[in-house]
Amino acid sequence: MSHGKFITLEGVEGVGKSTNLLFITEWLKKHNINFIQTREPGGTPLAEQLRELLLAKRDESVDPTAELLMVFAARAQHLSQVILPALKRGDWVICDRFTDATYAYQGGGRRLDRQLIEQLEQTVQGDLRPDKVLLLDLDPEVGLKRAARTGEADRFESEHLEFFQRVRAAYRDRAEAAPARYAVVDAGQSLEQVQMDLAKQLELLL
Amino acid sequence: MSHGKFITLEGVEGVGKSTNLLFITEWLKKHNINFIQTREPGGTPLAEQLRELLLAKRDESVDPTAELLMVFAARAQHLSQVILPALKRGDWVICDRFTDATYAYQGGGRRLDRQLIEQLEQTVQGDLRPDKVLLLDLDPEVGLKRAARTGEADRFESEHLEFFQRVRAAYRDRAEAAPARYAVVDAGQSLEQVQMDLAKQLELLL
Repeated sequence: MSHGKFITLEGVEGVGKSTNLLFITEWLKKHNINFIQTREPGGTPLAEQLRELLLAKRDESVDPTAELLMVFAARAQHLSQVILPALKRGDWVICDRFTDATYAYQGGGRRLDRQLIEQLEQTVQGDLRPDKVLLLDLDPEVGLKRAARTGEADRFESEHLEFFQRVRAAYRDRAEAAPARYAVVDAGQSLEQVQMDLAKQLELLL
Repeated sequence: MSHGKFITLEGVEGVGKSTNLLFITEWLKKHNINFIQTREPGGTPLAEQLRELLLAKRDESVDPTAELLMVFAARAQHLSQVILPALKRGDWVICDRFTDATYAYQGGGRRLDRQLIEQLEQTVQGDLRPDKVLLLDLDPEVGLKRAARTGEADRFESEHLEFFQRVRAAYRDRAEAAPARYAVVDAGQSLEQVQMDLAKQLELLL
């Protein structure tokens, strides 16, 4: 029994995640690979409810540790109900954000202790790590301008530029520390070039 | 600056927590003690939303680790926004359930690893522990009969008797391990006797 591949797509706002997710799923279909597409926080009814609580803007200031625990609660539910069963069936899993986003947003952005995140990662995931993290990398100043927002900004989108610069730096640090598991794709290139880079990475996983 | 006292009331369903909470708050008023009354999971708008997610019956089975992390997320929020500020002001805090309930329900009931609960307790609370845990102790078979339920049972209330027996056993184990911090009150006595026992415990805290 071979396990499916677990691929995550990461990046700050405006890097083109939605467009490129579509490209990735089209690529998988063309290669006759069974897969599921999902996202974090979310992916199950309970985890999506947690996502709503996380994103909602509120009068109450949200304790960063509470935020971190909600993220991992949603992840534990998502893993047990959706991701692990899919990988066991042999399906590939394409996940829009995963634990690297926690290191980036809660660790880099909110400045929470990395050891605490590592502890929770171990508790919730055991040894499971993505086979490949596709990191769409872009200067957040460019990204935020690109992100033509429809509707109101959520609690994260409302953060200031410096927050997103810390998020991006944390993403890049993670990629540098484990280059085999990460593919950093320059999202400032033409879409055609970005997607050629993504396809090359996907081919390596076949 | 003297800190307020932190008192928690614990017990399985049907032990008479609501009635005795009222007795405790009346006692505090009579003694001119500034206090707040609160509950877990809950106590802030976000934490109350987490409570709703925790209690809701759902088609999806809830991963026990996800449940545990939601409980501690709500607790981190409650502590930072409500409990710690109150104690710092010098107010007493009367809390309907707290971390002993986590050891009892998620540890005893759901059989989650105690070390994991201890780790999260340390992360979220640091050294903060209740000054006194008032444990209303009763055979759950009696308690469940007493609990004249109005409305539908929630996700916890829907558990079987054996679950509540494990919850009670875990509560009693905690009390036995640290007798100075716990007062085990026999909730099978007359209400008058229960309240005499509670008053005696409260007087010791003055």
